Amino acid sequence: MILDKSLIQQYNEQLAATQQKKFNFLKATLQDEGHDVTALLEQLAAFQIAIPSWALGTGGTRFGRFSGGGEPRSLEEKMEDVGLLHALNQSSGAISLHIPWDIPQNATAIKQLAASFELQFDAVNSNTFQDQNDQNYSYKFGSLSHTDKQVRDQAIAHNVEVIKHGIDLGSKALTIWLSDGTDFPGQQNFRRSFQRTLDSFQQIYDALPEDWKVFIEYKPYEPHFYSTVVADWGTSLLFCQKLGEKALGLVDLGHHLPNTNIEQIVSRFLMEGKLGGFHFNDSKYGDDDLTVGAMQPFQLFLIFNELVEGMASQEVQNPALSWMIDASHNVKDPLEDLLQSIEAIKIALAQALIVDRKKLENAQEQNDTTTAQEILQHAFRTDVRPLLAQARLESGAAIDPLAFYRQNKIRQELINQRGVKTYSTGL
Amino acid sequence: MILDKSLIQQYNEQLAATQQKKFNFLKATLQDEGHDVTALLEQLAAFQIAIPSWALGTGGTRFGRFSGGGEPRSLEEKMEDVGLLHALNQSSGAISLHIPWDIPQNATAIKQLAASFELQFDAVNSNTFQDQNDQNYSYKFGSLSHTDKQVRDQAIAHNVEVIKHGIDLGSKALTIWLSDGTDFPGQQNFRRSFQRTLDSFQQIYDALPEDWKVFIEYKPYEPHFYSTVVADWGTSLLFCQKLGEKALGLVDLGHHLPNTNIEQIVSRFLMEGKLGGFHFNDSKYGDDDLTVGAMQPFQLFLIFNELVEGMASQEVQNPALSWMIDASHNVKDPLEDLLQSIEAIKIALAQALIVDRKKLENAQEQNDTTTAQEILQHAFRTDVRPLLAQARLESGAAIDPLAFYRQNKIRQELINQRGVKTYSTGL
Amino acid sequence: MILDKSLIQQYNEQLAATQQKKFNFLKATLQDEGHDVTALLEQLAAFQIAIPSWALGTGGTRFGRFSGGGEPRSLEEKMEDVGLLHALNQSSGAISLHIPWDIPQNATAIKQLAASFELQFDAVNSNTFQDQNDQNYSYKFGSLSHTDKQVRDQAIAHNVEVIKHGIDLGSKALTIWLSDGTDFPGQQNFRRSFQRTLDSFQQIYDALPEDWKVFIEYKPYEPHFYSTVVADWGTSLLFCQKLGEKALGLVDLGHHLPNTNIEQIVSRFLMEGKLGGFHFNDSKYGDDDLTVGAMQPFQLFLIFNELVEGMASQEVQNPALSWMIDASHNVKDPLEDLLQSIEAIKIALAQALIVDRKKLENAQEQNDTTTAQEILQHAFRTDVRPLLAQARLESGAAIDPLAFYRQNKIRQELINQRGVKTYSTGL
Amino acid sequence: MILDKSLIQQYNEQLAATQQKKFNFLKATLQDEGHDVTALLEQLAAFQIAIPSWALGTGGTRFGRFSGGGEPRSLEEKMEDVGLLHALNQSSGAISLHIPWDIPQNATAIKQLAASFELQFDAVNSNTFQDQNDQNYSYKFGSLSHTDKQVRDQAIAHNVEVIKHGIDLGSKALTIWLSDGTDFPGQQNFRRSFQRTLDSFQQIYDALPEDWKVFIEYKPYEPHFYSTVVADWGTSLLFCQKLGEKALGLVDLGHHLPNTNIEQIVSRFLMEGKLGGFHFNDSKYGDDDLTVGAMQPFQLFLIFNELVEGMASQEVQNPALSWMIDASHNVKDPLEDLLQSIEAIKIALAQALIVDRKKLENAQEQNDTTTAQEILQHAFRTDVRPLLAQARLESGAAIDPLAFYRQNKIRQELINQRGVKTYSTGL
Repeated sequence: MILDKSLIQQYNEQLAATQQKKFNFLKATLQDEGHDVTALLEQLAAFQIAIPSWALGTGGTRFGRFSGGGEPRSLEEKMEDVGLLHALNQSSGAISLHIPWDIPQNATAIKQLAASFELQFDAVNSNTFQDQNDQNYSYKFGSLSHTDKQVRDQAIAHNVEVIKHGIDLGSKALTIWLSDGTDFPGQQNFRRSFQRTLDSFQQIYDALPEDWKVFIEYKPYEPHFYSTVVADWGTSLLFCQKLGEKALGLVDLGHHLPNTNIEQIVSRFLMEGKLGGFHFNDSKYGDDDLTVGAMQPFQLFLIFNELVEGMASQEVQNPALSWMIDASHNVKDPLEDLLQSIEAIKIALAQALIVDRKKLENAQEQNDTTTAQEILQHAFRTDVRPLLAQARLESGAAIDPLAFYRQNKIRQELINQRGVKTYSTGL
Repeated sequence: MILDKSLIQQYNEQLAATQQKKFNFLKATLQDEGHDVTALLEQLAAFQIAIPSWALGTGGTRFGRFSGGGEPRSLEEKMEDVGLLHALNQSSGAISLHIPWDIPQNATAIKQLAASFELQFDAVNSNTFQDQNDQNYSYKFGSLSHTDKQVRDQAIAHNVEVIKHGIDLGSKALTIWLSDGTDFPGQQNFRRSFQRTLDSFQQIYDALPEDWKVFIEYKPYEPHFYSTVVADWGTSLLFCQKLGEKALGLVDLGHHLPNTNIEQIVSRFLMEGKLGGFHFNDSKYGDDDLTVGAMQPFQLFLIFNELVEGMASQEVQNPALSWMIDASHNVKDPLEDLLQSIEAIKIALAQALIVDRKKLENAQEQNDTTTAQEILQHAFRTDVRPLLAQARLESGAAIDPLAFYRQNKIRQELINQRGVKTYSTGL
Repeated sequence: MILDKSLIQQYNEQLAATQQKKFNFLKATLQDEGHDVTALLEQLAAFQIAIPSWALGTGGTRFGRFSGGGEPRSLEEKMEDVGLLHALNQSSGAISLHIPWDIPQNATAIKQLAASFELQFDAVNSNTFQDQNDQNYSYKFGSLSHTDKQVRDQAIAHNVEVIKHGIDLGSKALTIWLSDGTDFPGQQNFRRSFQRTLDSFQQIYDALPEDWKVFIEYKPYEPHFYSTVVADWGTSLLFCQKLGEKALGLVDLGHHLPNTNIEQIVSRFLMEGKLGGFHFNDSKYGDDDLTVGAMQPFQLFLIFNELVEGMASQEVQNPALSWMIDASHNVKDPLEDLLQSIEAIKIALAQALIVDRKKLENAQEQNDTTTAQEILQHAFRTDVRPLLAQARLESGAAIDPLAFYRQNKIRQELINQRGVKTYSTGL
Repeated sequence: MILDKSLIQQYNEQLAATQQKKFNFLKATLQDEGHDVTALLEQLAAFQIAIPSWALGTGGTRFGRFSGGGEPRSLEEKMEDVGLLHALNQSSGAISLHIPWDIPQNATAIKQLAASFELQFDAVNSNTFQDQNDQNYSYKFGSLSHTDKQVRDQAIAHNVEVIKHGIDLGSKALTIWLSDGTDFPGQQNFRRSFQRTLDSFQQIYDALPEDWKVFIEYKPYEPHFYSTVVADWGTSLLFCQKLGEKALGLVDLGHHLPNTNIEQIVSRFLMEGKLGGFHFNDSKYGDDDLTVGAMQPFQLFLIFNELVEGMASQEVQNPALSWMIDASHNVKDPLEDLLQSIEAIKIALAQALIVDRKKLENAQEQNDTTTAQEILQHAFRTDVRPLLAQARLESGAAIDPLAFYRQNKIRQELINQRGVKTYSTGL
């Protein structure tokens, strides 16, 4: 389904007056506080979040999956969905492919299709946490960390193949979420698992083109419930140190133990110049993969506070970051869920951008904790939504993408085109 | 596969001398400490743990499932597997059926089969956490708590049907694990969800035969990640209070928030005469469903310490309990996993039985914390395995069921009979 | 220190124009959304939060305490501090006394002093978690749950004495935070500890005047690290059920295990008509006792969402609630910290008040999860601070209490009056 | 109080026959399994655990402290207590001093005293988490990480002074537990706090003698409740990498977020040759500082399983480790508590020593998870206490130190000597 952009324009015209009023008020307030609103709008407009190809269908748990309708049935339809999102918000101008769920059969055609939607190809993702029908060896007991060299070689070859697909499409990074781990004490030797994994990583690293990066994602548990090889940021960093400068850590917000201070981890990675990117989602218990900002919006703001501060600081030497959503849409329309997620991310970004950094730095120097808290809370409590809407309006997106989506019954249209019982590949 | 019991006898004869030596040493030690070893052996022999029909195949996570071979393909084969376990350890003399995964088509035949394996039918389990192909309404947004009366009625009818299957087989209880809950703040009104659920429970309760019970299981999260209707023991107890005396709480060891003191919850339920039964498993992070005793053996002992004390106390009026394993065998042979689980449960029971209750009570009265700790730790540190082996030996089971299972290549035999690529119904 | 109210007036005049502009914008927006802004202002103005007498000094941890200056040295000075807060924000019109830290020697004089500051006396608090110099028996191993009747009787008598002090001052409730518990498995029998506690509670309950309530606070751990007698809301409710209608549960936000859904607990208590009140604070790890709203502002909003919905619902029969802050000010000026806490509470209240209940109810009925989320997030993202400022302005409080406090160097003034090295009784 | 060693001998004679019987049975069993029992006895006898000078008095929480009697009033009396423990179990042959709580006024005399008790001086501990009366600058807002260079310099100087005291006594390591952190978002810049701390550490490092080490302890929270500079093992390792080879990580068992896999962290540190030592204790919720092995004995065993495997492996290059208890004795006699802790540590060590490493390695290679679990559980379920008792008997310690302590009413004797109301310096 290709969105007729004039529909957006018509829609925006209806909302223009209200938007103008709200934006003017916010603009005046922000200017009073010394902010350059034009620069803010530019920063917001420029910020693009990649959509993973597996997030366009209904997700589930081990207890079941309740499909919705009109899910994309092919890579092409997935790209169509991302294109739709991007047309609606001009903020999702990239797609992140997962191999083997979405192998591009004809890279040239796929690239042309992407270009037609103004989409880039973000990091490509390998998968050695499931067995595919045609593979020789099972990953039941691990892949890159497996005791059996043949299994490791198969997993390495898969990653190398993923890189090749990425090269064909113009990706510049490989994301490895290695689920390898154990379920019972004694099942494996922790050190040797690490060493075998390092050896495997090294071989994949060696296959990276000059201008590529590899992101080493960490996660404490699930699908394994005793240990995981890349369990935490410390392990991720250790691997990156040993591999070289192309290897960087990747933070998935749901991949932490209860009560973890994630924003400090972000700061540590940045300090070391080793932050590669993000998988955004939200959670209350574990890797719940909920809509971004649905549960802990203040934490999301604090993370962006670190990112904005760190990326702007002369003290930090870190490559540009890769931003991606990684959520599971179990009870909501995936496209609605993604629109909500992107809105939440950009709200957090906008709030972080309006933190008064000078004043904050000063309060920190003085150990004036009350003032430091006031500064952050002031930014967080500011209703920045008119700023986001303005950035969208100015870039041709819908002032309120979700309302537009609903009004235009887009899901119904997709169901009409694709059917009620469609299943997107993925989890 | 029907086990030739003479094989067990032959096997035991080989181990008899060593077992005798170990048992004699333990027996003498326990007698010195004032225990009646014959009574202990009887209590151990009498303790039977039900095997759920869904635990005989390989389990998985939302990220995949790695099947093993020789899994049972039908209810009959599942019963065969439980019969096998029971022959090996004389401790698994019951099966707990799940509907609709294991609908008995011919109850009479199934009962005869059960009798041939000396198996009882423990609590029957309903399932309203998944959609079945033939159902009219989806449980995507809940079942017994659903806002739509038609969905609730369908779920109630299913539970009533499960009771009927149970009656046919001689079960005496229905276990309801109600997964209903929400993933996002605001998705439902907590109070009304409770009230609708209560109304549904009441209708199911009214369908219970005179001598039946209904077990209300609780769980804080998964498959929903914001709220669950029956989230904790307090909610379970509240439902049971409102329903009546046939309603009792059910404790699944993996259904608690981090750091929960489960043994105190067990004590509270017992105090109120409202403990119905257990789902045994173990975990490190969430509802990991690992082999019982694999992660927190001391906690398991402390739970049995409460059970042994409470069930023996004149101060407690609680019906007899229902014991069941509820685990997911993702990386081990399910039968081996179950043998290990039963061993762990009985070790904890045996250790709890040899706690010097008089001395402990005295230490408690005196607030002699050091001594109280010593008493529990002494029981826990005692190697009671020869006691378990002796109870098995005397009841015709294998001295070492797992070793026997391996020696006799039983899994290979099952694969030969059933095939390498078989899939058991269940998770 | 008595605040000259004309100072506030002068201060407000400086800010009046800006406030007017911000309020007008918000007022128009809220009116467009169908809200009665006058009613909102009244509800905000009427909402009063009690300040505990122990929260006016610097708090600490077991590792140390770093005092500030100008702390109140007597009950009178503590009341002066609360009076100061109340003059600044007209939202802290009550004080909650702790016995024995703040025994009123002359109740009549203390009441007159309170009246001069327009302060009420909220719930009185007993303390059996510490030993006082003059007591006969130690609470090392418990108080109301102790194995020794003499210790229990002493603790009961203390609570009765606290009630008497409360009667003298016009309080209408007793809050019992019972820290009793154990540090090691086996240290006590859970059931008997409960029963002894119930017996002690009953005796205290019997000493309550007709129009009084008793609040049973729960907490999972600290100061004891294995078990606590009143560990969770389920136990609190059980005690309240057994005691009678004057007994109600009290929720301290920091007294929960990791990841607990507190708002659902609030709903459960309200549903049962058994919610007595709140101890507000915030936390990331345990009972951190941080400034309210400093860590989880969205959770605070969700709790108020339940309170506003529940207290307005015809389906709920619950007495009026008691609101109190219970925080520990370790690195901030206690008065600044309290001002920030009250602001955060009222922001959450205001946001909860502007939730579109009709639309939310409708979305819930339709299982329209996306819309339900949008409704709550819209309220939360709205910058309601001008509404709070307006309510303050109209009730004679400072538009920005914290800025006023700083501008007028009130802490310095207190130090001048009371000294740099003063220690407030309390933790 | 100096223990008459002949009392121990007499005591042992009474228990000798029973001990002989139990040991013989265990010895035969272990020999059947291929173990060299003499070597095991030697390893157990050689294993010495340092006692911290602050663990000899009653501990407490922020809510209070309930002192016992007979607590040591001076460094000399503390050493006496450790000497007593060592005489009882021949396993506590070292003391770890805390400065400034236990500044040795006359190093020569103190060393002679230590020699008389056969005690070594383990790592010395600095304290910048409390303000001392005579210091110029407060640590309220940090010490080695403070924004103010003068505060940092003071804290550095203190650490250098601690090293000097350590040199005088023959210590070979400095342990830095840096509590610096923040309580509120925004309070400090994470990166700059790290950098200032690194600079401070470097200066302390430069003051280390050639043959010394410095241990960098990590802890996620408490006394600060938002962030901690050295929050986790990853940060500790990062500091150690930047400092140099004398810097090593220190693991305190209570310093982890819920559900952390500590044994894998131990393996990671060992793999990097960066493990310095341990602070043993146990916990259920946070840094509960309970008796070692009281809550999670299986976890303790798994940690020792890593230590035994790692230290014996050719693949690991790690210096010898420093072992210390760090617990808080709130409801038990500190000496009894320490005796229980040491017993639990040595039980875990003995169990780890009897793990069949060859078989385990083989099971791991084969991904035979069932067998791997059986091997570890077999070791853990073995009752190794007779082995410990034998090691004590052969080294002149009491067969059952705790029973001896009780029988000989040693606490009463200490109270007689030191008084009922004595307070040991420390927490």
